[in-house]
Amino acid sequence: MDSEVASPRERYRAQVQAEIKQHAWQQIAATGVSALSLKAIAKHLGMSGPALYRYFASRDDLITALIRDAYRSLADAVREAYDSGADIAALAHVVRAWALSDPHRYLLIYGTPVPGYQAPADTVALSQEIMAVLIGAYRKADIPSQETPFGAHLDSHRHWTPDPTASTAVLRQALTFWTRLHGVLSLELAGHFTGMGIDVALLYADEVDSLLRQSLGRFR
Amino acid sequence: MDSEVASPRERYRAQVQAEIKQHAWQQIAATGVSALSLKAIAKHLGMSGPALYRYFASRDDLITALIRDAYRSLADAVREAYDSGADIAALAHVVRAWALSDPHRYLLIYGTPVPGYQAPADTVALSQEIMAVLIGAYRKADIPSQETPFGAHLDSHRHWTPDPTASTAVLRQALTFWTRLHGVLSLELAGHFTGMGIDVALLYADEVDSLLRQSLGRFR
Repeated sequence: MDSEVASPRERYRAQVQAEIKQHAWQQIAATGVSALSLKAIAKHLGMSGPALYRYFASRDDLITALIRDAYRSLADAVREAYDSGADIAALAHVVRAWALSDPHRYLLIYGTPVPGYQAPADTVALSQEIMAVLIGAYRKADIPSQETPFGAHLDSHRHWTPDPTASTAVLRQALTFWTRLHGVLSLELAGHFTGMGIDVALLYADEVDSLLRQSLGRFR
Repeated sequence: MDSEVASPRERYRAQVQAEIKQHAWQQIAATGVSALSLKAIAKHLGMSGPALYRYFASRDDLITALIRDAYRSLADAVREAYDSGADIAALAHVVRAWALSDPHRYLLIYGTPVPGYQAPADTVALSQEIMAVLIGAYRKADIPSQETPFGAHLDSHRHWTPDPTASTAVLRQALTFWTRLHGVLSLELAGHFTGMGIDVALLYADEVDSLLRQSLGRFR
């Protein structure tokens, strides 16, 4: 359709935005998100400050664009894998490969929050897309319900779920998938296992295995 | 002993160091670790830059002092609880209370690493003190060995352990305690559960409960 063809001006704008974001990632890797400076990026790209502000009105706007890209990329990765038949274990390995391919990107969305920055509501919708895939994968497995105090609480606190028809047991498992894998991944990306000399791929695989055994209601 | 009595000069030095560190924590809360500025701290305390550098020779020296204080505080909290009879579950709740009492302190040691900063070796020794308490607590429980590929790997990769006589199953459980509780805590501190409206205390308690059941070799 004609309406989808970008004008030269639009293409130029998209190209400059991409250059700004690319340099922002380099700055994040070098100095951290909280030291991100639009002035420094403008200088590096040979732009004036006011020219750069036409692309991103503030540091927070730029951070939001990077966070959106990060969530979009992870949501696409898990969705594509799921649509190709990936089960829970395969999805867990997609998440780790995605995290290791760009630790700064993973840590921007799941690491230490940026002081003073508040993510807009639409980034929550993106994280919900990831949750929706996990819930879908757990729905395919036969998850027995487990009566725990948190399960009872979750039963009456489920407005956050992207899939209102999912059972509480499925929601519980999707949350567990997230917290347990994040536990290993974030410590791995932060280098905590480096000095210990252990193979984190095996630790992760073991944690995924234990997650599956537990979700199916048996320990071994 | 006389040698333990600080001279007025030493007491003054300790007091100024404490003031600098206190202001550094405020700066970390306001702008993040990677934006920590010795110049800004000196200005706030009415000191010249060179005067402050007599207390901390560099930004990294100051970060190291804060990291040491954080690990020292957590190691003392778990050690005191353990010496007073705390078991695994009680220790898990000590860790959460410690994390919630000062999220920036938790995230400085377990959150996103500071770009360009390399922690010195003695901070590893402090983190080992925490691991030693966990290993002690698991040694008291009767942990059956579990044969998994990671368990076999850990059996031949245990030079990191502060307790060479602990069984591989105990080491495995101590690692699991760390990764699983960090998974929930770090997402909680980063605000990921806020919009979901779930009670993280119950989620955490459920995760601790599941950790105990699994370590004892049974699912429920």
